[in-house]
Parts: sequence; C-alpha cells; structure tokens
Amino acid sequence: MINFCNRCGGKVASAVPPDEDRLRSVCQSCGFIHYENPKMVVGCLPTWKDQILLVRRAIEPRLGKWTLPAGYLENGETMADGARRETTEEAGADTGELIPYGLYNLTQINQVYMMFRTELLHTRFRGGTESLEVKLFKEADIPWPEMAFKVMRVCLERFLADRRTADFPFHTADITFEKR
Amino acid sequence: MINFCNRCGGKVASAVPPDEDRLRSVCQSCGFIHYENPKMVVGCLPTWKDQILLVRRAIEPRLGKWTLPAGYLENGETMADGARRETTEEAGADTGELIPYGLYNLTQINQVYMMFRTELLHTRFRGGTESLEVKLFKEADIPWPEMAFKVMRVCLERFLADRRTADFPFHTADITFEKR
Repeated sequence: MINFCNRCGGKVASAVPPDEDRLRSVCQSCGFIHYENPKMVVGCLPTWKDQILLVRRAIEPRLGKWTLPAGYLENGETMADGARRETTEEAGADTGELIPYGLYNLTQINQVYMMFRTELLHTRFRGGTESLEVKLFKEADIPWPEMAFKVMRVCLERFLADRRTADFPFHTADITFEKR
Repeated sequence: MINFCNRCGGKVASAVPPDEDRLRSVCQSCGFIHYENPKMVVGCLPTWKDQILLVRRAIEPRLGKWTLPAGYLENGETMADGARRETTEEAGADTGELIPYGLYNLTQINQVYMMFRTELLHTRFRGGTESLEVKLFKEADIPWPEMAFKVMRVCLERFLADRRTADFPFHTADITFEKR
C-alpha cells in the first residue's frame, strides 16, 4: 500500500534498514523509513441496570450487524476520552465513569482493542450516521449470531460470566480468526 | 510531515473529509486519506529478587540515561510478545511470565505505553546495540535523576509503592509534561 514517500514523493521499496531486522518501506530517494504499527481501537460496554447497550452498524464492514460502540483512538486523546467519544458518536449515549476492562491483541489485522465498562447516565440514546439502531438488551435477548466482531463477542461473554460473581477483573486476550 | 500521498505520490493537503469532524492529510489527486493515530510502546519491569533491571540508553533521545526496556509494538505481534522482544533486544534478558501492570496515555506525543511486570529467569543479561549498560538496582540505588522518561519513573514509583503491600493491581494513568 505504501508506494510513495510521504516526505519527498519518491518511490518506496521494501528493504531491511541498517541495524534493523525486518522489512520496512524505505524511500529510494531520501531514505525515509515508513514505520507501520498496530492501531488502537477503544470502546465501551455500556450498561443500564441489567441491560447492555448495543449498536447496529450503518457502515461496512458488517453493515446491519450489532456491536459495542468503539473506534480508532485519535492523536491527542486518552483511551478513555476516545472510548467516550465513540460511544457518543455511535450511540448518542452519555456515560459515567469508564473502568478499564479488557485489552485484546488482534495480531492478524494489526489492531489492539481497549474496552471499558461504563454505566449509562440515562436512557436517552439515539443512533448517529454510523448506527442504524441503538438498543438495550437483556442477556437472553443478545443477538449472538448477528454480532459483527469476535472481539466484542469475547468481551461480552466475559462480562456476562463476570457478572455472575460481581467481580470484573481487568483481563487481556488474544483474538484470532480464520482468514476469509 | 505528510507532504505526498503514499498511494499515488500526489500532493497532500490538510482538509476535513466529508462525514468527519477533524483535519486529515488528504491527497489532492486520488483523495486517499492518511489517518495518523497514536503508537503503542510496550515494555517490561523486570525483577530479580528485590532488585529491578534498568538499561542505560545508547541512543537518542536521552542517550546515557536509564530506563526500563521498551519499544514500539510491531505489526503481527501481541503486546506481551513485543515487550519480551524489547527486553531481549535491549537487555539480553530472559523473562518469565509477563503480567499486565500499567497502561499510560501520553497524549502530547501520541503514544500509549503498556508495561508488564516480569521476573528474570536468571542474571545472565547484557547490553545490546541500544544499551550502554544493563544493571540490577536495589530500591535505594535507583538513579532517579538519571531516569530518561517520566512514564518509566511513574511506573517504577508505583511498583515500589505496590511492593510494600505485595499487591500489584493493574492501573492506568495520564502522563503529561512541560513542552520543551
């Protein structure tokens, strides 16, 4: 995907730079190395009493499927600020304190997910341009086959298990999937 | 810093794309949006009995100063794998289980640090090309004024405080500093 240099516009080639041990995109004109690193996704598992807030995606990938509100962490914001922003953007929801809950490695797609638990301040939520629908679900009604992403299923299953003992320890997990 | 398009080599300008709310680097030829997001740094706080392993930096920034082994998370690796790799590269040290310990927002420099606690498997460590020196320190001997980075001081202070109660809960913190 990196064909040209961001700095000088020169052609980029794959090469192992001096003192390094892996291939990078290196500019053949100015020598600038384009490092590519995993991106962070931040999101919330918002609750209201015994119910969980899910959003139905209005955009690809997985248009029409359900998920927890989340999105890319932006420059200049904390993980909690980013997770709260995404919850506002996708669910129009106002959230209380954000409690770190799960940190997930998705090495196959170069993403790290950080998910927070939070309680809704009220139930006046609404979809945005990215959500077809926003809805509270009791455990028995969660649309498991219609969930968009495995990482969110894992987070939700863990939360429901933890809720039985009212103990929500911070956890990490590696999420892998069959290549499609 | 982004002057040219990675995809087509066209000129890039700062603009707010449709449906977005912030400035991005947008290619004026092909329209490709160059998203810039925080990078993750992963590292270890390695211990041997009551001592802590520090490395003295052989590279800028902060050449000659002490720090905990850490570096950028690479594509395709988990946070724990990355932290272990950096500890091998910078300290030549073999580490046991990595336990998630602290997650830090450094919004001013667009970085997120994830630090793990770990016990050294033995004391046969050695500096690499990035370290002038690798050494175990008892609490009283930690070279506080010679520590390279505030985030590592915060992590270390927290660890020493937690050690008094032998309880090391996972924590997050925002690290801010005066602009130089």
